Amino acid sequence: MPPRRRTPTEGISDLTIARLSIYLRCLQALEAEEIQTVSSQELAERFHLNSAQIRKDLAYFGEFGIRGVGYNVRELKAHLIEILALDHERRVVVVGAGNLGTALSHFSGFNTGGFRIVAVLDSDPQKVGRRTPGGLVIEPASKLGEIVRQRKAQIGVITVPSAAAQKVFDELVAAGVQAVLNFAPAQLKEHPDVKVRNVDLKVNLEFLSFFLRHPH
Amino acid sequence: MPPRRRTPTEGISDLTIARLSIYLRCLQALEAEEIQTVSSQELAERFHLNSAQIRKDLAYFGEFGIRGVGYNVRELKAHLIEILALDHERRVVVVGAGNLGTALSHFSGFNTGGFRIVAVLDSDPQKVGRRTPGGLVIEPASKLGEIVRQRKAQIGVITVPSAAAQKVFDELVAAGVQAVLNFAPAQLKEHPDVKVRNVDLKVNLEFLSFFLRHPH
Repeated sequence: MPPRRRTPTEGISDLTIARLSIYLRCLQALEAEEIQTVSSQELAERFHLNSAQIRKDLAYFGEFGIRGVGYNVRELKAHLIEILALDHERRVVVVGAGNLGTALSHFSGFNTGGFRIVAVLDSDPQKVGRRTPGGLVIEPASKLGEIVRQRKAQIGVITVPSAAAQKVFDELVAAGVQAVLNFAPAQLKEHPDVKVRNVDLKVNLEFLSFFLRHPH
Repeated sequence: MPPRRRTPTEGISDLTIARLSIYLRCLQALEAEEIQTVSSQELAERFHLNSAQIRKDLAYFGEFGIRGVGYNVRELKAHLIEILALDHERRVVVVGAGNLGTALSHFSGFNTGGFRIVAVLDSDPQKVGRRTPGGLVIEPASKLGEIVRQRKAQIGVITVPSAAAQKVFDELVAAGVQAVLNFAPAQLKEHPDVKVRNVDLKVNLEFLSFFLRHPH
Protein backbone atom coordinates (compact mmCIF):
# COMPACT_ATOMS: atom_id res chain seq x y z
CA MET A 1 0.00 0.00 0.00
CA PRO A 2 1.52 3.31 -1.02
CA PRO A 3 1.77 5.82 1.82
CA ARG A 4 -0.91 8.47 1.89
CA ARG A 5 1.04 11.66 1.55
CA ARG A 6 -0.36 15.07 2.19
CA THR A 7 0.62 18.19 0.36
CA PRO A 8 2.88 20.31 2.54
CA THR A 9 0.91 23.12 4.10
CA GLU A 10 1.63 26.47 5.68
CA GLY A 11 1.29 24.94 9.14
CA ILE A 12 4.57 23.04 8.96
CA SER A 13 7.31 24.79 10.91
CA ASP A 14 10.73 25.65 9.59
CA LEU A 15 12.17 23.45 12.34
CA THR A 16 10.30 20.42 10.98
CA ILE A 17 11.62 21.05 7.47
CA ALA A 18 15.18 21.39 8.77
CA ARG A 19 14.83 18.11 10.67
CA LEU A 20 13.68 16.24 7.54
CA SER A 21 17.10 16.98 6.10
CA ILE A 22 18.72 15.47 9.21
CA TYR A 23 16.52 12.36 9.01
CA LEU A 24 17.50 11.99 5.38
CA ARG A 25 21.17 11.97 6.31
CA CYS A 26 20.55 9.32 8.99
CA LEU A 27 18.69 7.12 6.53
CA GLN A 28 21.53 7.45 4.04
CA ALA A 29 23.94 6.23 6.73
CA LEU A 30 21.66 3.25 7.49
CA GLU A 31 21.31 2.41 3.80
CA ALA A 32 25.11 2.43 3.43
CA GLU A 33 25.13 -0.28 6.12
CA GLU A 34 22.45 -2.22 4.23
CA ILE A 35 19.91 -1.82 7.05
CA GLN A 36 16.44 -2.29 5.56
CA THR A 37 14.00 -1.29 8.28
CA VAL A 38 14.28 1.01 11.27
CA SER A 39 11.81 2.06 13.96
CA SER A 40 11.55 5.68 15.10
CA GLN A 41 12.94 4.46 18.44
CA GLU A 42 16.01 2.87 16.80
CA LEU A 43 16.53 5.94 14.61
CA ALA A 44 16.36 8.17 17.68
CA GLU A 45 18.79 6.08 19.72
CA ARG A 46 21.29 5.61 16.96
CA PHE A 47 21.42 9.27 15.92
CA HIS A 48 20.61 11.01 19.20
CA LEU A 49 17.21 12.25 18.08
CA ASN A 50 13.75 12.32 19.66
CA SER A 51 11.51 9.42 18.55
CA ALA A 52 8.21 11.20 19.25
CA GLN A 53 9.41 14.18 17.25
CA ILE A 54 10.44 11.97 14.33
CA ARG A 55 6.93 10.46 14.23
CA LYS A 56 5.28 13.86 14.54
CA ASP A 57 7.47 15.48 11.87
CA LEU A 58 6.86 12.67 9.39
CA ALA A 59 3.12 12.58 10.12
CA TYR A 60 2.76 15.99 8.47
CA PHE A 61 3.57 14.35 5.16
CA GLY A 62 1.72 11.06 5.39
CA GLU A 63 1.83 7.62 6.98
CA PHE A 64 5.18 6.10 6.29
CA GLY A 65 5.89 3.46 8.93
CA ILE A 66 4.25 0.14 9.66
CA ARG A 67 3.23 -0.22 13.28
CA GLY A 68 5.48 -2.71 15.09
CA VAL A 69 7.88 -2.95 12.15
CA GLY A 70 9.11 0.56 11.50
CA TYR A 71 10.12 2.42 8.39
CA ASN A 72 11.48 0.91 5.22
CA VAL A 73 14.81 2.74 5.00
CA ARG A 74 15.00 2.94 1.23
CA GLU A 75 11.37 4.01 0.82
CA LEU A 76 11.43 6.66 3.53
CA LYS A 77 14.67 8.04 2.10
CA ALA A 78 13.03 8.31 -1.33
CA HIS A 79 10.02 10.08 0.18
CA LEU A 80 12.19 12.60 2.03
CA ILE A 81 14.13 13.34 -1.15
CA GLU A 82 10.81 13.94 -2.88
CA ILE A 83 9.39 16.09 -0.06
CA LEU A 84 12.55 18.22 0.04
CA ALA A 85 12.50 18.36 -3.76
CA LEU A 86 16.09 17.10 -3.89
CA ASP A 87 15.32 15.05 -6.97
CA HIS A 88 15.79 18.20 -9.05
CA GLU A 89 19.00 20.06 -9.81
CA ARG A 90 19.29 23.18 -7.68
CA ARG A 91 21.56 25.83 -9.14
CA VAL A 92 23.32 28.04 -6.63
CA VAL A 93 25.11 31.35 -7.09
CA VAL A 94 27.53 32.55 -4.39
CA VAL A 95 27.90 36.33 -4.08
CA GLY A 96 31.06 37.39 -2.24
CA ALA A 97 34.34 35.59 -2.88
CA GLY A 98 35.91 36.35 0.48
CA ASN A 99 37.20 33.58 2.69
CA LEU A 100 33.78 32.27 3.59
CA GLY A 101 32.39 32.49 0.06
CA THR A 102 35.44 30.77 -1.34
CA ALA A 103 35.26 28.04 1.31
CA LEU A 104 31.56 27.48 0.60
CA SER A 105 32.05 27.44 -3.14
CA HIS A 106 33.93 24.19 -2.91
CA PHE A 107 32.42 22.83 0.27
CA SER A 108 31.42 19.29 -0.69
CA GLY A 109 27.92 19.63 0.76
CA PHE A 110 27.22 22.49 -1.63
CA ASN A 111 28.05 20.54 -4.75
CA THR A 112 26.32 17.22 -4.10
CA GLY A 113 22.82 15.81 -3.80
CA GLY A 114 21.28 17.96 -6.48
CA PHE A 115 23.01 21.23 -5.56
CA ARG A 116 25.43 22.76 -7.97
CA ILE A 117 27.29 26.03 -7.64
CA VAL A 118 27.08 27.69 -11.04
CA ALA A 119 28.82 30.99 -10.25
CA VAL A 120 30.92 32.82 -7.68
CA LEU A 121 30.75 36.61 -7.92
CA ASP A 122 32.65 39.48 -6.36
CA SER A 123 32.68 43.25 -6.81
CA ASP A 124 36.45 43.52 -6.25
CA PRO A 125 38.24 43.80 -9.64
CA GLN A 126 41.32 42.28 -7.95
CA LYS A 127 39.37 39.06 -7.33
CA VAL A 128 37.49 38.85 -10.63
CA GLY A 129 39.16 36.41 -13.01
CA ARG A 130 40.87 34.41 -10.26
CA ARG A 131 39.98 30.77 -9.90
CA THR A 132 38.54 29.44 -6.63
CA PRO A 133 40.01 26.23 -5.17
CA GLY A 134 36.82 24.56 -6.43
CA GLY A 135 37.74 25.53 -10.00
CA LEU A 136 35.23 28.29 -10.72
CA VAL A 137 36.43 31.58 -12.16
CA ILE A 138 35.28 34.53 -10.03
CA GLU A 139 32.98 36.75 -12.08
CA PRO A 140 32.05 40.43 -11.63
CA ALA A 141 29.14 41.12 -9.28
CA SER A 142 27.92 43.74 -11.78
CA LYS A 143 26.77 40.81 -13.96
CA LEU A 144 24.70 39.25 -11.19
CA GLY A 145 21.30 39.62 -12.86
CA GLU A 146 22.50 38.37 -16.22
CA ILE A 147 24.31 35.37 -14.71
CA VAL A 148 21.39 34.34 -12.47
CA ARG A 149 18.98 34.47 -15.42
CA GLN A 150 21.25 32.76 -17.96
CA ARG A 151 22.27 29.92 -15.63
CA LYS A 152 18.81 29.59 -14.08
CA ALA A 153 20.12 29.91 -10.51
CA GLN A 154 17.35 29.33 -7.95
CA ILE A 155 19.33 29.84 -4.76
CA GLY A 156 21.59 32.76 -3.87
CA VAL A 157 24.22 32.56 -1.14
CA ILE A 158 25.20 35.96 0.29
CA THR A 159 28.68 36.18 1.79
CA VAL A 160 29.32 39.89 1.22
CA PRO A 161 29.94 42.41 4.03
CA SER A 162 26.90 43.53 5.98
CA ALA A 163 26.65 46.94 4.27
CA ALA A 164 26.30 45.37 0.80
CA ALA A 165 23.92 42.55 1.75
CA GLN A 166 20.58 44.29 1.11
CA LYS A 167 21.63 45.51 -2.33
CA VAL A 168 22.81 42.02 -3.29
CA PHE A 169 19.59 40.50 -1.91
CA ASP A 170 17.44 42.91 -3.93
CA GLU A 171 19.42 42.14 -7.09
CA LEU A 172 19.09 38.40 -6.52
CA VAL A 173 15.33 38.77 -6.03
CA ALA A 174 14.99 40.96 -9.12
CA ALA A 175 16.87 38.34 -11.14
CA GLY A 176 14.42 35.64 -10.08
CA VAL A 177 16.18 33.76 -7.31
CA GLN A 178 13.62 31.97 -5.11
CA ALA A 179 15.63 31.34 -1.97
CA VAL A 180 18.58 32.96 -0.23
CA LEU A 181 21.08 31.66 2.28
CA ASN A 182 22.40 34.79 4.00
CA PHE A 183 25.70 34.72 5.89
CA ALA A 184 26.00 38.51 6.17
CA PRO A 185 25.33 39.83 9.67
CA ALA A 186 22.50 42.02 8.40
CA GLN A 187 18.74 41.97 8.92
CA LEU A 188 17.50 41.79 5.36
CA LYS A 189 14.27 43.42 4.32
CA GLU A 190 12.72 40.28 2.91
CA HIS A 191 10.44 39.68 -0.05
CA PRO A 192 7.18 37.73 0.26
CA ASP A 193 8.03 35.34 -2.59
CA VAL A 194 11.59 34.57 -1.53
CA LYS A 195 12.50 32.25 1.34
CA VAL A 196 15.47 33.46 3.37
CA ARG A 197 17.61 31.43 5.75
CA ASN A 198 20.00 33.47 7.87
CA VAL A 199 23.16 31.74 9.04
CA ASP A 200 24.76 34.27 11.30
CA LEU A 201 28.00 32.92 12.67
CA LYS A 202 28.41 35.71 15.20
CA VAL A 203 24.90 35.09 16.53
CA ASN A 204 25.82 31.44 17.01
CA LEU A 205 28.91 32.34 19.02
CA GLU A 206 27.04 34.90 21.12
CA PHE A 207 24.32 32.32 21.69
CA LEU A 208 26.88 29.91 23.14
CA SER A 209 28.38 32.66 25.29
CA PHE A 210 25.06 32.90 27.14
CA PHE A 211 25.47 29.33 28.35
CA LEU A 212 29.09 29.58 29.50
CA ARG A 213 29.87 29.72 33.16
CA HIS A 214 31.21 33.12 34.09
CA PRO A 215 34.96 33.14 34.62
CA HIS A 216 36.12 33.88 38.15
CA MET B 1 15.53 53.66 38.35
CA PRO B 2 17.66 50.65 37.47
CA PRO B 3 15.81 47.98 35.53
CA ARG B 4 14.67 44.99 37.51
CA ARG B 5 16.47 42.14 35.87
CA ARG B 6 15.60 38.52 36.41
CA THR B 7 18.08 35.70 36.42
CA PRO B 8 17.81 33.77 33.16
CA THR B 9 15.83 30.60 33.66
CA GLU B 10 15.42 27.28 31.95
CA GLY B 11 12.18 28.48 30.39
CA ILE B 12 13.88 30.82 27.93
CA SER B 13 14.05 29.33 24.45
CA ASP B 14 17.15 29.04 22.34
CA LEU B 15 15.39 31.20 19.76
CA THR B 16 15.04 34.05 22.28
CA ILE B 17 18.73 33.87 23.14
CA ALA B 18 19.71 33.93 19.47
CA ARG B 19 17.48 36.98 18.91
CA LEU B 20 19.14 38.90 21.76
CA SER B 21 22.32 38.79 19.73
CA ILE B 22 20.46 40.25 16.74
CA TYR B 23 18.97 43.03 18.90
CA LEU B 24 22.44 43.81 20.19
CA ARG B 25 23.70 44.28 16.65
CA CYS B 26 20.80 46.59 15.84
CA LEU B 27 21.47 48.70 18.94
CA GLN B 28 25.14 48.97 18.00
CA ALA B 29 24.09 50.31 14.60
CA LEU B 30 21.79 52.88 16.25
CA GLU B 31 24.50 53.93 18.70
CA ALA B 32 26.91 54.48 15.80
CA GLU B 33 24.33 56.95 14.47
CA GLU B 34 24.12 58.63 17.89
CA ILE B 35 20.46 57.68 18.33
CA GLN B 36 19.68 57.73 22.04
CA THR B 37 16.24 56.20 22.43
CA VAL B 38 14.28 53.76 20.33
CA SER B 39 10.85 52.16 20.72
CA SER B 40 10.27 48.48 20.00
CA GLN B 41 8.16 49.63 17.06
CA GLU B 42 10.97 51.75 15.59
CA LEU B 43 13.48 48.96 16.19
CA ALA B 44 11.18 46.52 14.41
CA GLU B 45 10.56 48.78 11.42
CA ARG B 46 14.15 49.79 10.98
CA PHE B 47 15.60 46.28 11.18
CA HIS B 48 12.70 44.19 9.85
CA LEU B 49 11.92 42.56 13.19
CA ASN B 50 8.69 41.89 15.11
CA SER B 51 7.96 44.51 17.78
CA ALA B 52 5.79 42.23 19.96
CA GLN B 53 8.52 39.63 19.89
CA ILE B 54 11.17 42.17 20.87
CA ARG B 55 9.09 43.17 23.91
CA LYS B 56 8.40 39.55 24.84
CA ASP B 57 12.03 38.47 24.46
CA LEU B 58 13.34 41.33 26.56
CA ALA B 59 10.66 40.84 29.22
CA TYR B 60 12.29 37.55 30.22
CA PHE B 61 15.22 39.53 31.54
CA GLY B 62 13.55 42.50 33.19
CA GLU B 63 11.81 45.78 32.46
CA PHE B 64 14.01 47.82 30.21
CA GLY B 65 11.89 50.32 28.32
CA ILE B 66 9.90 53.31 29.49
CA ARG B 67 6.31 53.26 28.29
CA GLY B 68 5.73 55.90 25.63
CA VAL B 69 9.45 56.69 25.35
CA GLY B 70 11.16 53.44 24.45
CA TYR B 71 14.51 51.98 25.25
CA ASN B 72 17.65 53.89 26.05
CA VAL B 73 19.95 52.58 23.31
CA ARG B 74 23.19 52.69 25.30
CA GLU B 75 21.65 51.13 28.41
CA LEU B 76 19.82 48.33 26.61
CA LYS B 77 23.00 47.55 24.67
CA ALA B 78 24.94 47.30 27.93
CA HIS B 79 22.28 45.00 29.41
CA LEU B 80 22.31 42.69 26.40
CA ILE B 81 26.10 42.49 26.57
CA GLU B 82 25.77 41.53 30.21
CA ILE B 83 22.97 39.00 29.62
CA LEU B 84 24.94 37.34 26.82
CA ALA B 85 28.05 37.49 29.01
CA LEU B 86 29.97 39.24 26.24
CA ASP B 87 31.80 41.40 28.78
CA HIS B 88 34.20 38.50 29.34
CA GLU B 89 36.87 37.19 27.00
CA ARG B 90 35.74 33.98 25.31
CA ARG B 91 38.56 31.80 24.08
CA VAL B 92 37.80 29.69 21.05
CA VAL B 93 39.64 26.71 19.60
CA VAL B 94 38.94 25.67 16.00
CA VAL B 95 39.41 21.97 15.23
CA GLY B 96 39.83 21.23 11.53
CA ALA B 97 41.91 23.51 9.34
CA GLY B 98 40.14 22.74 6.08
CA ASN B 99 38.65 25.49 3.98
CA LEU B 100 35.82 26.22 6.36
CA GLY B 101 37.97 26.07 9.50
CA THR B 102 40.56 28.33 7.91
CA ALA B 103 37.91 30.79 6.78
CA LEU B 104 36.35 30.86 10.25
CA SER B 105 39.69 31.26 11.98
CA HIS B 106 40.09 34.71 10.55
CA PHE B 107 36.45 35.61 10.07
CA SER B 108 36.19 39.02 11.71
CA GLY B 109 33.11 38.07 13.74
CA PHE B 110 35.09 35.33 15.44
CA ASN B 111 37.83 37.62 16.69
CA THR B 112 35.87 40.59 17.99
CA GLY B 113 33.47 41.47 20.77
CA GLY B 114 35.11 39.33 23.41
CA PHE B 115 35.79 36.30 21.23
CA ARG B 116 39.35 35.30 20.50
CA ILE B 117 40.54 32.30 18.53
CA VAL B 118 43.45 30.90 20.50
CA ALA B 119 44.25 27.83 18.39
CA VAL B 120 43.55 26.14 15.07
CA LEU B 121 44.19 22.39 15.07
CA ASP B 122 44.39 19.71 12.41
CA SER B 123 45.29 16.04 12.35
CA ASP B 124 46.98 16.26 8.93
CA PRO B 125 50.79 16.49 9.35
CA GLN B 126 50.90 18.33 5.99
CA LYS B 127 48.86 21.17 7.47
CA VAL B 128 50.47 21.34 10.91
CA GLY B 129 53.00 24.17 11.07
CA ARG B 130 51.43 26.17 8.27
CA ARG B 131 50.12 29.61 9.06
CA THR B 132 46.45 30.46 8.48
CA PRO B 133 45.61 33.75 6.69
CA GLY B 134 44.65 35.04 10.15
CA GLY B 135 48.23 34.48 11.34
CA LEU B 136 47.79 31.44 13.60
CA VAL B 137 50.11 28.48 13.19
CA ILE B 138 48.15 25.24 12.70
CA GLU B 139 48.86 22.87 15.59
CA PRO B 140 48.50 19.08 15.81
CA ALA B 141 45.06 17.79 16.81
CA SER B 142 46.81 15.23 19.04
CA LYS B 143 47.55 18.10 21.44
CA LEU B 144 43.89 19.15 21.67
CA GLY B 145 43.43 18.42 25.39
CA GLU B 146 46.67 20.09 26.39
CA ILE B 147 46.02 23.20 24.28
CA VAL B 148 42.41 23.64 25.48
CA ARG B 149 43.50 23.38 29.13
CA GLN B 150 46.59 25.59 28.84
CA ARG B 151 44.85 28.36 26.90
CA LYS B 152 41.61 28.07 28.86
CA ALA B 153 39.47 27.67 25.74
CA GLN B 154 35.76 27.66 26.59
CA ILE B 155 34.30 27.20 23.11
CA GLY B 156 35.25 24.58 20.55
CA VAL B 157 34.44 24.93 16.86
CA ILE B 158 34.29 21.61 14.98
CA THR B 159 35.01 21.79 11.26
CA VAL B 160 36.37 18.26 10.79
CA PRO B 161 34.76 15.65 8.51
CA SER B 162 31.64 13.95 9.79
CA ALA B 163 33.38 10.68 10.71
CA ALA B 164 35.82 12.43 13.08
CA ALA B 165 33.32 14.81 14.71
CA GLN B 166 32.23 12.66 17.68
CA LYS B 167 35.82 11.88 18.68
CA VAL B 168 36.77 15.57 18.52
CA PHE B 169 33.64 16.50 20.49
CA ASP B 170 34.43 13.96 23.23
CA GLU B 171 38.01 15.24 23.45
CA LEU B 172 36.83 18.86 23.69
CA VAL B 173 34.40 17.92 26.47
CA ALA B 174 37.05 15.93 28.34
CA ALA B 175 39.38 18.93 28.14
CA GLY B 176 36.76 21.16 29.75
CA VAL B 177 35.20 23.07 26.87
CA GLN B 178 31.72 24.31 27.84
CA ALA B 179 30.19 24.98 24.44
CA VAL B 180 30.62 23.67 20.93
CA LEU B 181 29.76 25.11 17.54
CA ASN B 182 29.52 22.10 15.25
CA PHE B 183 29.79 22.49 11.48
CA ALA B 184 30.28 18.77 10.82
CA PRO B 185 27.21 17.13 9.27
CA ALA B 186 27.00 14.64 12.14
CA GLN B 187 24.47 14.13 14.91
CA LEU B 188 26.68 14.39 17.99
CA LYS B 189 25.96 12.39 21.11
CA GLU B 190 25.82 15.37 23.41
CA HIS B 191 26.92 15.87 26.99
CA PRO B 192 24.57 17.32 29.66
CA ASP B 193 27.05 20.00 30.74
CA VAL B 194 28.03 21.18 27.28
CA LYS B 195 25.85 23.40 25.07
CA VAL B 196 26.00 22.46 21.41
CA ARG B 197 24.96 24.59 18.44
CA ASN B 198 24.82 22.77 15.13
CA VAL B 199 25.38 24.83 12.00
CA ASP B 200 24.76 22.38 9.24
CA LEU B 201 25.23 24.08 5.90
CA LYS B 202 23.78 21.20 3.93
CA VAL B 203 20.64 21.22 6.11
CA ASN B 204 20.25 24.91 5.35
CA LEU B 205 20.42 24.31 1.62
CA GLU B 206 18.03 21.36 1.75
CA PHE B 207 15.69 23.48 3.85
CA LEU B 208 15.59 26.11 1.11
CA SER B 209 15.04 23.46 -1.54
CA PHE B 210 11.72 22.60 0.11
CA PHE B 211 10.46 26.10 -0.65
CA LEU B 212 11.55 26.28 -4.27
CA ARG B 213 9.03 25.96 -7.02
CA HIS B 214 9.48 22.76 -8.93
CA PRO B 215 11.15 23.26 -12.29
CA HIS B 216 9.03 22.44 -15.31
